[in-house]
Amino acid sequence: MKVCQIETPALILDLDVMERNMAVMKAFTDSVGIRLRPHYKSHKCTSIAHMQMAAGAKGLCCAKTSEAADLVRAGIEDLLIANQVTEPAKIAQVASLAKCCRLTVCVDSAQNVRDLEAAAAVQDSLICCLVEFDIGMGRCGVATREEVLALADQISACPHLHFEGIQAYAGHLAHQTDLELRRQASGEIEQALWKLRRFLEERGYEVKEISGVSTGTAMLRSENSVYTEIQAGSYLFMDTAYNALNLAFSNSLFVLATVIRLGGGLLVTDAGLKSVSVDQRPPVFREYPDLPIRFSEEHSTLVADRFSHAVGDRLCMVPSHCCTTVNLHDFFYFVRGDRVVDRVPVTSRGKSL
Amino acid sequence: MKVCQIETPALILDLDVMERNMAVMKAFTDSVGIRLRPHYKSHKCTSIAHMQMAAGAKGLCCAKTSEAADLVRAGIEDLLIANQVTEPAKIAQVASLAKCCRLTVCVDSAQNVRDLEAAAAVQDSLICCLVEFDIGMGRCGVATREEVLALADQISACPHLHFEGIQAYAGHLAHQTDLELRRQASGEIEQALWKLRRFLEERGYEVKEISGVSTGTAMLRSENSVYTEIQAGSYLFMDTAYNALNLAFSNSLFVLATVIRLGGGLLVTDAGLKSVSVDQRPPVFREYPDLPIRFSEEHSTLVADRFSHAVGDRLCMVPSHCCTTVNLHDFFYFVRGDRVVDRVPVTSRGKSL
Repeated sequence: MKVCQIETPALILDLDVMERNMAVMKAFTDSVGIRLRPHYKSHKCTSIAHMQMAAGAKGLCCAKTSEAADLVRAGIEDLLIANQVTEPAKIAQVASLAKCCRLTVCVDSAQNVRDLEAAAAVQDSLICCLVEFDIGMGRCGVATREEVLALADQISACPHLHFEGIQAYAGHLAHQTDLELRRQASGEIEQALWKLRRFLEERGYEVKEISGVSTGTAMLRSENSVYTEIQAGSYLFMDTAYNALNLAFSNSLFVLATVIRLGGGLLVTDAGLKSVSVDQRPPVFREYPDLPIRFSEEHSTLVADRFSHAVGDRLCMVPSHCCTTVNLHDFFYFVRGDRVVDRVPVTSRGKSL
Repeated sequence: MKVCQIETPALILDLDVMERNMAVMKAFTDSVGIRLRPHYKSHKCTSIAHMQMAAGAKGLCCAKTSEAADLVRAGIEDLLIANQVTEPAKIAQVASLAKCCRLTVCVDSAQNVRDLEAAAAVQDSLICCLVEFDIGMGRCGVATREEVLALADQISACPHLHFEGIQAYAGHLAHQTDLELRRQASGEIEQALWKLRRFLEERGYEVKEISGVSTGTAMLRSENSVYTEIQAGSYLFMDTAYNALNLAFSNSLFVLATVIRLGGGLLVTDAGLKSVSVDQRPPVFREYPDLPIRFSEEHSTLVADRFSHAVGDRLCMVPSHCCTTVNLHDFFYFVRGDRVVDRVPVTSRGKSL
């Protein structure tokens, strides 16, 4: 089957490009001695998770407990839920999953540590903990080194928890388009984390992991980085928001659309807001990168004097945010060149529990 | 089970409010003698479609062929696909579905009419056609009465097609917040459609249906309206975009979220961009309607000096666009007061083919 025969709208993934992106990231992380723990939230696909493991990832990270459950069922054995898990039902599930794999979660409150320990004790499992340190994102995490130390003390006193290190995720820098500002802020974060690390080590703690770093800031790391693992997800796919940063990765993910109308200065396709997300800068058509797209739920419209396409032609839309676009689709079409090689479920689509 | 026991994030539908919205719309359409053909795209749920039929709807309309297939399988017998169907595989499916129900599609090109006739001839089915007339939306439809007439002539000459009338959908007016501007533009559209109708009738055509009208413009109709059916969808649920129009409907649809962090002037919940859409004006929490929400993929954050909630509390987010928010979820929780009465699949979630 050829790509032009796929019924649209459809999510297509160019495997050749994705594999090049994986190789670029692998070469970089090897060169600086940082391990890659790719983020599942971007693809939500256990098949792709296994490709990442085969390419040298140390494990996966994910955003939600329901995603972790899908990954464990798919045989992934080293897993980080890169957020706090605070609801009782989810904590019980985490404690149970921790019997099936090496499972790490983030914590930022004493109550949460108590709840995790209680649930792990019931299951007799061991949950690894990263204390989240807020390095400027303003969402979760504690703000001072004393708070980190207090949580490390508390975790260390819990027989079913293990203090693993720090999560420090600079989500607010991920899309900073000015390279110099991005580099400078990333450098300041490294310094702050080195200080935190020494502070904890001086108090007898081994800080085994410092986890964080997005696709946008991964390649600012050096051999001297304080980070031990990189949580990037979008490097696989890219999107128009990350394209603006001129990174070393290329677009592998597209929404395939069909031209359903041409005329009167309009080109209309069958892919709209239910097939592509618009929560970041706008998506564009690869074939018309300079034309803004007018969206409705099931249509996208371009306005121009002339178009080089006919009704029935396929166009490739470049998403603006790969993670939220993937979450709209039940399947990826894996393609190489103009051929379809597989149709693969987005395993955890809609799994936000 | 109580609403506060639902694991979050979750889509909840207050049946009492939804039923009141249905009753308000029914009383209005009865009073002006226009039939309601509710739009499936808003709820994508065959259970709700049957509630709408029981409340007096003449049939359903939907956006896509894959939605129509779900509705036909669920026993809906009068169906309008309120768009053009132009891909060969989908046209074949339409011709096949037309054997199972009374099926109407929109057309705006001679080639499409030829393709529909050829496919219906193969299946020996009858497809009803509305000619779409562009009344200012600038997406699909023909622009002149002569083009409408030419398509009516062509359809009438096709043994497997039936000319049913006109679709004229003023999507560009649906969210016009100025009532006077909305009323005036709607009045001008009515005049233009009366002229078109007389033009066609003088040439021997019965214009049985004139279909269109959104939730935002439904109640501007009178007994003298040229429209014979209203395609509204959002009246069931409402959202912050339609709330701005001060209509007679109330919010029945919410994204239930749990407070996962409080402190440092922040309230953070577990519902983010993967649980609510942001393609129209922003969503708000019912409990904090004046606070803007800061979104990330799986979090929403409020900033304020004081909050009247604790970690673990449930909050209700009012979506900004009900249709695209529903499309993120696999289930509705149907609730009455504080009790869950059912968990019902979003039958056609992600069905954009």
